[in-house]
Amino acid sequence: MPPRLHIITLGVHDFERALRFYRDGLGWTPSAASQGDIAFFDAGGVVLALHPREALAADAGVTPVGSGFNGLTLAHNVASREAVDAVIRAVEAAGATVVKAPEEASWGGYSGYFADPEGQLWEVAHNPFFPFDDAGRIVLP
Amino acid sequence: MPPRLHIITLGVHDFERALRFYRDGLGWTPSAASQGDIAFFDAGGVVLALHPREALAADAGVTPVGSGFNGLTLAHNVASREAVDAVIRAVEAAGATVVKAPEEASWGGYSGYFADPEGQLWEVAHNPFFPFDDAGRIVLP
Repeated sequence: MPPRLHIITLGVHDFERALRFYRDGLGWTPSAASQGDIAFFDAGGVVLALHPREALAADAGVTPVGSGFNGLTLAHNVASREAVDAVIRAVEAAGATVVKAPEEASWGGYSGYFADPEGQLWEVAHNPFFPFDDAGRIVLP
Repeated sequence: MPPRLHIITLGVHDFERALRFYRDGLGWTPSAASQGDIAFFDAGGVVLALHPREALAADAGVTPVGSGFNGLTLAHNVASREAVDAVIRAVEAAGATVVKAPEEASWGGYSGYFADPEGQLWEVAHNPFFPFDDAGRIVLP
Protein backbone atom coordinates (compact mmCIF):
# COMPACT_ATOMS: atom_id res chain seq x y z
CA MET A 1 0.00 0.00 0.00
CA PRO A 2 1.70 3.18 -1.17
CA PRO A 3 2.00 6.10 1.25
CA ARG A 4 -1.12 7.94 0.27
CA LEU A 5 -4.04 9.12 2.37
CA HIS A 6 -6.85 10.32 0.13
CA ILE A 7 -9.88 10.93 2.33
CA ILE A 8 -10.60 11.55 5.99
CA THR A 9 -14.24 11.04 6.86
CA LEU A 10 -15.53 12.52 10.08
CA GLY A 11 -18.45 10.50 11.39
CA VAL A 12 -20.63 13.15 12.96
CA HIS A 13 -23.57 12.99 15.35
CA ASP A 14 -25.23 16.03 13.79
CA PHE A 15 -24.57 16.20 10.06
CA GLU A 16 -26.33 19.52 9.44
CA ARG A 17 -24.51 21.19 12.33
CA ALA A 18 -21.16 19.91 11.11
CA LEU A 19 -21.92 20.99 7.55
CA ARG A 20 -22.89 24.45 8.73
CA PHE A 21 -19.62 24.78 10.64
CA TYR A 22 -17.33 23.80 7.76
CA ARG A 23 -19.37 25.37 4.95
CA ASP A 24 -20.82 28.50 6.54
CA GLY A 25 -18.57 28.98 9.55
CA LEU A 26 -15.21 28.30 7.94
CA GLY A 27 -16.39 29.14 4.44
CA TRP A 28 -15.30 25.91 2.78
CA THR A 29 -17.06 25.08 -0.49
CA PRO A 30 -18.62 21.61 -0.67
CA SER A 31 -17.74 19.63 -3.77
CA ALA A 32 -20.48 18.96 -6.30
CA ALA A 33 -20.00 15.31 -5.35
CA SER A 34 -21.69 16.08 -2.03
CA GLN A 35 -25.23 14.77 -1.78
CA GLY A 36 -27.74 13.91 0.90
CA ASP A 37 -25.89 13.03 4.07
CA ILE A 38 -22.36 13.11 2.71
CA ALA A 39 -20.27 16.21 2.08
CA PHE A 40 -16.83 16.37 0.50
CA PHE A 41 -14.36 19.24 0.73
CA ASP A 42 -11.08 19.63 -1.12
CA ALA A 43 -8.75 20.29 1.79
CA GLY A 44 -5.70 20.95 -0.37
CA GLY A 45 -4.19 17.60 -1.23
CA VAL A 46 -6.58 15.49 0.79
CA VAL A 47 -10.36 15.25 0.93
CA LEU A 48 -12.26 15.95 4.15
CA ALA A 49 -15.67 14.30 4.22
CA LEU A 50 -18.61 14.53 6.63
CA HIS A 51 -21.03 11.65 7.09
CA PRO A 52 -23.32 10.59 9.94
CA ARG A 53 -21.45 8.60 12.54
CA GLU A 54 -23.93 5.70 12.57
CA ALA A 55 -23.79 5.38 8.81
CA LEU A 56 -20.00 5.52 8.77
CA ALA A 57 -19.75 2.79 11.40
CA ALA A 58 -22.32 0.71 9.53
CA ASP A 59 -20.35 1.05 6.33
CA ALA A 60 -17.29 -0.36 8.05
CA GLY A 61 -19.37 -2.96 9.84
CA VAL A 62 -18.42 -1.80 13.33
CA THR A 63 -20.44 -0.59 16.29
CA PRO A 64 -20.79 3.21 16.44
CA VAL A 65 -20.40 3.21 20.21
CA GLY A 66 -17.46 5.20 21.45
CA SER A 67 -16.68 8.08 23.76
CA GLY A 68 -13.95 10.31 25.04
CA PHE A 69 -10.78 11.35 23.26
CA ASN A 70 -10.81 9.86 19.78
CA GLY A 71 -7.04 9.60 19.71
CA LEU A 72 -6.43 11.76 16.71
CA THR A 73 -5.80 15.37 15.87
CA LEU A 74 -5.98 17.28 12.60
CA ALA A 75 -3.66 20.18 11.93
CA HIS A 76 -3.90 23.37 9.93
CA ASN A 77 -0.50 25.00 9.55
CA VAL A 78 0.07 28.66 8.86
CA ALA A 79 3.02 30.84 7.97
CA SER A 80 3.34 32.94 11.13
CA ARG A 81 2.46 33.16 14.80
CA GLU A 82 0.14 36.05 14.04
CA ALA A 83 -1.74 33.83 11.63
CA VAL A 84 -2.22 31.23 14.36
CA ASP A 85 -3.82 33.86 16.57
CA ALA A 86 -5.97 35.13 13.72
CA VAL A 87 -7.23 31.66 12.75
CA ILE A 88 -8.06 30.76 16.34
CA ARG A 89 -10.04 33.99 16.68
CA ALA A 90 -11.82 33.32 13.39
CA VAL A 91 -12.82 29.74 14.17
CA GLU A 92 -14.07 30.75 17.59
CA ALA A 93 -16.27 33.34 15.91
CA ALA A 94 -17.44 30.57 13.57
CA GLY A 95 -18.65 28.42 16.46
CA ALA A 96 -15.60 26.36 17.40
CA THR A 97 -14.47 25.90 21.00
CA VAL A 98 -10.96 27.01 21.80
CA VAL A 99 -9.42 24.11 23.71
CA LYS A 100 -5.94 25.57 24.11
CA ALA A 101 -5.09 29.19 23.48
CA PRO A 102 -2.07 29.60 21.21
CA GLU A 103 1.27 29.40 22.99
CA GLU A 104 4.92 28.62 22.44
CA ALA A 105 5.37 24.93 21.72
CA SER A 106 8.16 22.80 23.15
CA TRP A 107 9.18 21.82 19.62
CA GLY A 108 10.01 25.38 18.65
CA GLY A 109 6.79 26.49 17.05
CA TYR A 110 3.58 28.14 18.19
CA SER A 111 0.18 26.50 18.31
CA GLY A 112 -3.31 26.34 19.71
CA TYR A 113 -6.16 23.84 19.53
CA PHE A 114 -9.84 24.14 18.82
CA ALA A 115 -12.66 21.62 18.77
CA ASP A 116 -15.22 21.59 15.98
CA PRO A 117 -18.90 21.29 16.99
CA GLU A 118 -18.49 17.49 17.17
CA GLY A 119 -15.47 17.77 19.44
CA GLN A 120 -12.90 16.86 16.80
CA LEU A 121 -9.61 18.48 17.76
CA TRP A 122 -7.77 20.69 15.29
CA GLU A 123 -4.36 22.16 15.99
CA VAL A 124 -3.55 25.48 14.37
CA ALA A 125 0.21 25.73 14.18
CA HIS A 126 3.13 27.73 12.94
CA ASN A 127 5.99 25.30 12.44
CA PRO A 128 9.07 27.10 11.12
CA PHE A 129 10.68 23.73 10.30
CA PHE A 130 7.90 22.61 7.95
CA PRO A 131 7.92 24.93 4.91
CA PHE A 132 5.15 24.98 2.33
CA ASP A 133 5.40 24.30 -1.38
CA ASP A 134 3.78 26.56 -4.00
CA ALA A 135 0.49 24.76 -3.50
CA GLY A 136 0.56 25.37 0.25
CA ARG A 137 1.34 21.76 1.16
CA ILE A 138 3.93 20.88 3.76
CA VAL A 139 7.31 19.86 2.42
CA LEU A 140 8.76 17.34 4.84
CA PRO A 141 12.52 17.14 5.18
CA MET B 1 -9.40 29.32 7.97
CA PRO B 2 -8.71 28.22 4.42
CA PRO B 3 -9.72 24.70 3.38
CA ARG B 4 -6.46 22.97 4.08
CA LEU B 5 -5.69 19.97 6.22
CA HIS B 6 -1.95 19.56 6.62
CA ILE B 7 -1.33 16.88 9.22
CA ILE B 8 -3.25 13.99 10.75
CA THR B 9 -1.66 12.74 13.93
CA LEU B 10 -2.64 9.32 15.19
CA GLY B 11 -2.29 9.13 18.97
CA VAL B 12 -1.16 5.56 19.52
CA HIS B 13 -0.99 3.35 22.59
CA ASP B 14 2.10 1.54 21.32
CA PHE B 15 4.33 3.85 19.31
CA GLU B 16 6.90 1.22 18.32
CA ARG B 17 4.22 -1.20 17.15
CA ALA B 18 2.51 1.50 15.10
CA LEU B 19 5.84 2.62 13.62
CA ARG B 20 6.69 -0.96 12.67
CA PHE B 21 3.34 -1.34 10.91
CA TYR B 22 3.58 1.80 8.80
CA ARG B 23 7.34 1.71 8.21
CA ASP B 24 8.12 -1.99 7.96
CA GLY B 25 4.71 -3.48 7.25
CA LEU B 26 3.45 -0.98 4.68
CA GLY B 27 6.91 0.14 3.65
CA TRP B 28 6.40 3.85 4.19
CA THR B 29 9.58 5.90 4.66
CA PRO B 30 9.64 8.09 7.77
CA SER B 31 10.65 11.71 7.15
CA ALA B 32 13.99 12.89 8.50
CA ALA B 33 11.91 15.16 10.73
CA SER B 34 10.90 12.08 12.73
CA GLN B 35 12.60 11.81 16.09
CA GLY B 36 12.09 10.07 19.40
CA ASP B 37 8.41 9.39 19.83
CA ILE B 38 7.11 11.23 16.80
CA ALA B 39 7.16 9.95 13.24
CA PHE B 40 6.08 11.83 10.11
CA PHE B 41 5.18 10.31 6.75
CA ASP B 42 4.49 12.13 3.51
CA ALA B 43 1.14 10.60 2.60
CA GLY B 44 0.90 12.36 -0.76
CA GLY B 45 -0.51 15.81 -0.13
CA VAL B 46 -1.02 15.42 3.57
CA VAL B 47 1.25 14.36 6.43
CA LEU B 48 0.44 11.33 8.56
CA ALA B 49 2.10 11.47 11.98
CA LEU B 50 2.37 8.97 14.82
CA HIS B 51 2.76 10.09 18.43
CA PRO B 52 1.92 8.46 21.76
CA ARG B 53 -1.72 8.93 22.65
CA GLU B 54 -1.02 10.29 26.14
CA ALA B 55 1.43 12.84 24.79
CA LEU B 56 -0.95 13.92 22.03
CA ALA B 57 -3.78 14.44 24.52
CA ALA B 58 -1.44 16.32 26.85
CA ASP B 59 -0.37 18.59 24.02
CA ALA B 60 -3.98 19.54 23.40
CA GLY B 61 -4.67 19.75 27.12
CA VAL B 62 -7.38 17.08 27.09
CA THR B 63 -7.79 13.79 28.92
CA PRO B 64 -6.51 10.78 26.94
CA VAL B 65 -9.40 8.64 28.13
CA GLY B 66 -11.58 7.33 25.36
CA SER B 67 -12.83 4.07 23.98
CA GLY B 68 -14.82 2.45 21.22
CA PHE B 69 -15.28 3.72 17.68
CA ASN B 70 -13.28 6.89 17.24
CA GLY B 71 -15.75 8.27 14.75
CA LEU B 72 -13.40 8.66 11.86
CA THR B 73 -12.10 6.68 8.92
CA LEU B 74 -9.13 7.18 6.64
CA ALA B 75 -9.27 6.14 3.01
CA HIS B 76 -6.75 4.91 0.50
CA ASN B 77 -8.17 4.98 -3.02
CA VAL B 78 -6.94 2.85 -5.87
CA ALA B 79 -7.56 2.67 -9.61
CA SER B 80 -9.34 -0.69 -9.86
CA ARG B 81 -11.28 -3.34 -7.97
CA GLU B 82 -8.38 -5.72 -8.38
CA ALA B 83 -6.13 -3.19 -6.65
CA VAL B 84 -8.54 -3.06 -3.69
CA ASP B 85 -8.26 -6.82 -3.30
CA ALA B 86 -4.49 -6.69 -3.66
CA VAL B 87 -4.05 -3.93 -1.08
CA ILE B 88 -6.31 -5.68 1.42
CA ARG B 89 -4.26 -8.88 1.01
CA ALA B 90 -1.03 -6.93 1.39
CA VAL B 91 -2.01 -5.06 4.55
CA GLU B 92 -3.28 -8.25 6.13
CA ALA B 93 0.09 -9.82 5.47
CA ALA B 94 1.63 -6.73 7.05
CA GLY B 95 -0.26 -7.24 10.30
CA ALA B 96 -3.51 -5.36 9.76
CA THR B 97 -6.89 -6.83 10.64
CA VAL B 98 -9.39 -7.07 7.82
CA VAL B 99 -12.61 -5.59 9.22
CA LYS B 100 -14.70 -5.86 6.06
CA ALA B 101 -13.70 -7.91 3.05
CA PRO B 102 -13.95 -5.93 -0.20
CA GLU B 103 -17.40 -5.84 -1.72
CA GLU B 104 -19.61 -3.82 -4.04
CA ALA B 105 -20.51 -0.51 -2.41
CA SER B 106 -23.96 1.06 -2.52
CA TRP B 107 -22.44 4.22 -4.03
CA GLY B 108 -21.22 2.41 -7.10
CA GLY B 109 -17.66 1.57 -6.13
CA TYR B 110 -15.90 -1.31 -4.44
CA SER B 111 -14.30 -1.19 -1.03
CA GLY B 112 -13.07 -2.98 2.06
CA TYR B 113 -11.87 -1.89 5.48
CA PHE B 114 -8.90 -2.82 7.62
CA ALA B 115 -7.80 -1.78 11.10
CA ASP B 116 -4.20 -0.86 11.81
CA PRO B 117 -2.62 -2.35 14.97
CA GLU B 118 -4.17 0.47 17.02
CA GLY B 119 -7.63 -0.18 15.61
CA GLN B 120 -7.72 2.87 13.35
CA LEU B 121 -10.02 2.09 10.45
CA TRP B 122 -8.82 2.49 6.88
CA GLU B 123 -11.06 2.03 3.87
CA VAL B 124 -9.44 0.79 0.68
CA ALA B 125 -11.66 1.87 -2.16
CA HIS B 126 -12.06 2.02 -5.88
CA ASN B 127 -14.31 4.99 -6.63
CA PRO B 128 -14.83 5.39 -10.39
CA PHE B 129 -16.32 8.85 -9.81
CA PHE B 130 -13.21 10.24 -8.08
CA PRO B 131 -10.40 10.36 -10.66
CA PHE B 132 -6.76 11.02 -9.75
CA ASP B 133 -4.53 13.84 -10.95
CA ASP B 134 -0.98 13.24 -12.17
CA ALA B 135 0.27 13.29 -8.59
CA GLY B 136 -2.23 10.62 -7.57
CA ARG B 137 -4.48 12.96 -5.61
CA ILE B 138 -8.24 12.84 -5.89
CA VAL B 139 -9.80 15.43 -8.17
CA LEU B 140 -13.20 16.27 -6.73
CA PRO B 141 -15.93 17.35 -9.13
